Amino acid sequence: MRQGGHEIMRGVVFDGSELTFRGDLPDVEPVEGEVVLNVRLAGICDTDLQIARGYLGFRGTPGHEFVAETSEGRRVTAEINAPCGQCDTCATGRGNHCPNRTVLGIVGRNGAMAERVRVPERGLHPIPDALSDHQAVFIEPLAAALRILDQVELGSASQAAVVGDGKLGLLSAWVLRSTGARVTWVGKHPEKLALGGSGIATCVLSDVETQGRTFDVVVDATGSTGGLPTALKLVRTCGIVVLKTTVAGTYAIDLAPIVIDEIRVVGSRCGPFSKAIAALQSGQFDVTRLIEAEYPLERAGEAFQHAGRPGARKVLIRVR
Amino acid sequence: MRQGGHEIMRGVVFDGSELTFRGDLPDVEPVEGEVVLNVRLAGICDTDLQIARGYLGFRGTPGHEFVAETSEGRRVTAEINAPCGQCDTCATGRGNHCPNRTVLGIVGRNGAMAERVRVPERGLHPIPDALSDHQAVFIEPLAAALRILDQVELGSASQAAVVGDGKLGLLSAWVLRSTGARVTWVGKHPEKLALGGSGIATCVLSDVETQGRTFDVVVDATGSTGGLPTALKLVRTCGIVVLKTTVAGTYAIDLAPIVIDEIRVVGSRCGPFSKAIAALQSGQFDVTRLIEAEYPLERAGEAFQHAGRPGARKVLIRVR
Repeated sequence: MRQGGHEIMRGVVFDGSELTFRGDLPDVEPVEGEVVLNVRLAGICDTDLQIARGYLGFRGTPGHEFVAETSEGRRVTAEINAPCGQCDTCATGRGNHCPNRTVLGIVGRNGAMAERVRVPERGLHPIPDALSDHQAVFIEPLAAALRILDQVELGSASQAAVVGDGKLGLLSAWVLRSTGARVTWVGKHPEKLALGGSGIATCVLSDVETQGRTFDVVVDATGSTGGLPTALKLVRTCGIVVLKTTVAGTYAIDLAPIVIDEIRVVGSRCGPFSKAIAALQSGQFDVTRLIEAEYPLERAGEAFQHAGRPGARKVLIRVR
Repeated sequence: MRQGGHEIMRGVVFDGSELTFRGDLPDVEPVEGEVVLNVRLAGICDTDLQIARGYLGFRGTPGHEFVAETSEGRRVTAEINAPCGQCDTCATGRGNHCPNRTVLGIVGRNGAMAERVRVPERGLHPIPDALSDHQAVFIEPLAAALRILDQVELGSASQAAVVGDGKLGLLSAWVLRSTGARVTWVGKHPEKLALGGSGIATCVLSDVETQGRTFDVVVDATGSTGGLPTALKLVRTCGIVVLKTTVAGTYAIDLAPIVIDEIRVVGSRCGPFSKAIAALQSGQFDVTRLIEAEYPLERAGEAFQHAGRPGARKVLIRVR
């Protein structure tokens, strides 16, 4: 039995070597405790680009930033981590770190770049009517940026810097700014840094030495091994570096400054969806400024190529 | 004018290529705000061994773990960091990180491996009569271990591990244990791990995979680039790695687990002398167990050779 009587569906699949659109993917099977959603819109994130290069070992349909509808037509999105709910890690409230978890479109679970996606019911978040699809597709990446505020205390007396002028860098800069902290956004491309808007100071990477080691908190959102060394040039003694960068492969790095200057390096990953939804509803973050292009599902291959261009902002895939 | 009328003194000097005992070092000059002390006993630490290999660029008399007497015969030791007291970093209470600081026997200031040493008056700590010289010479390294408790919260429900079976590893294990935490001490040498005593579980490095990633806090006190990767095999998700290791040169390391598992890496250096003195007075740490040998000042070269043997415990230099 298939839900709604479908047998096949349209969607994107990565088979280990190539990412392709297919018109004949097997439809999603219903499962106890999970719901099947009709996908409206999905975003391409750097993790998806890594998946398409085979870096993460994932096979199947990617996509974890999305807006969908329940069978009753209610707009929703969903948490990307699906914890087992049974293990010690889940018992201590760290379900996002459950060793048995699947992760939507990333680990052991098909994602949202298809007509339908199945997600655990308890991970669902309704999307308020006031939010457009174009705003709501940023709930997941904004939550990841908001995670920083769960981990680090900031206030109006704080000086913060964000290294990396990509999408997560901008969202992180906005999130830090929302605390009242003074924020400096550091990147390679002046034209990208211009997106920051008022209230965010900018600095091109080549001038980073002029900033001094004055920042209480520095976020590395570069996605490259150059990010942490740059962050260590900016952070003050006893300051905090928030590491958002996951890099395939190894760093060659001198960690002695971390010890000598008693720096704290804080790994930071997924964040609170409810807070992201509330922040978008309040209108404080103009996330649609980040959208560069939207492709129909059938042209997902082109969408991925576009998203992979240096300096590309957010590329979306319209499913329905 | 020289204090006490001396012109020369006996002491150790590192000239950039060799560490030697000299009978004709220029005596210490008095300076406003500082006091000249008569050294009784000094300890050799791994930093001193690095100095003797020329790694730290220091020239002069090493020695920062010591017991001395004031001109009135009162036993004292002293903080090793001498902050400027004028800069922004000092103003915010982080004098140990003052960018203009000198560090006793390590940066820009002669240390205690000589008949006399000069230290800032406000860094002096009287040594209680109840403490022997052999206990008091551990005030500085014990303070460094106690620094961990300033940075990390631990309680009887905590599971902690210390990696590295050297002197700082043992002091760290004892300090963590003193909080009531369950402590596992990990090292290469079973005969060194036997020093831990009751209440400290031990694990040889080759068995580290059997421990699981279960520890809330893991201290890397290895002094080698192998320490952090081992710590990351032991720490639980959202756990803390305290990095005590400063290594000359670079790590080649995969930092992705820090982000994915949201680990906190906390650099940790010098600690609170007053707490170390109180802890030694309370008798809770049997530090003299760590002493391996004591040499007279004239035989400092031999003492350094001894301290540099693999597995050596604390080697002391008796000055008077």
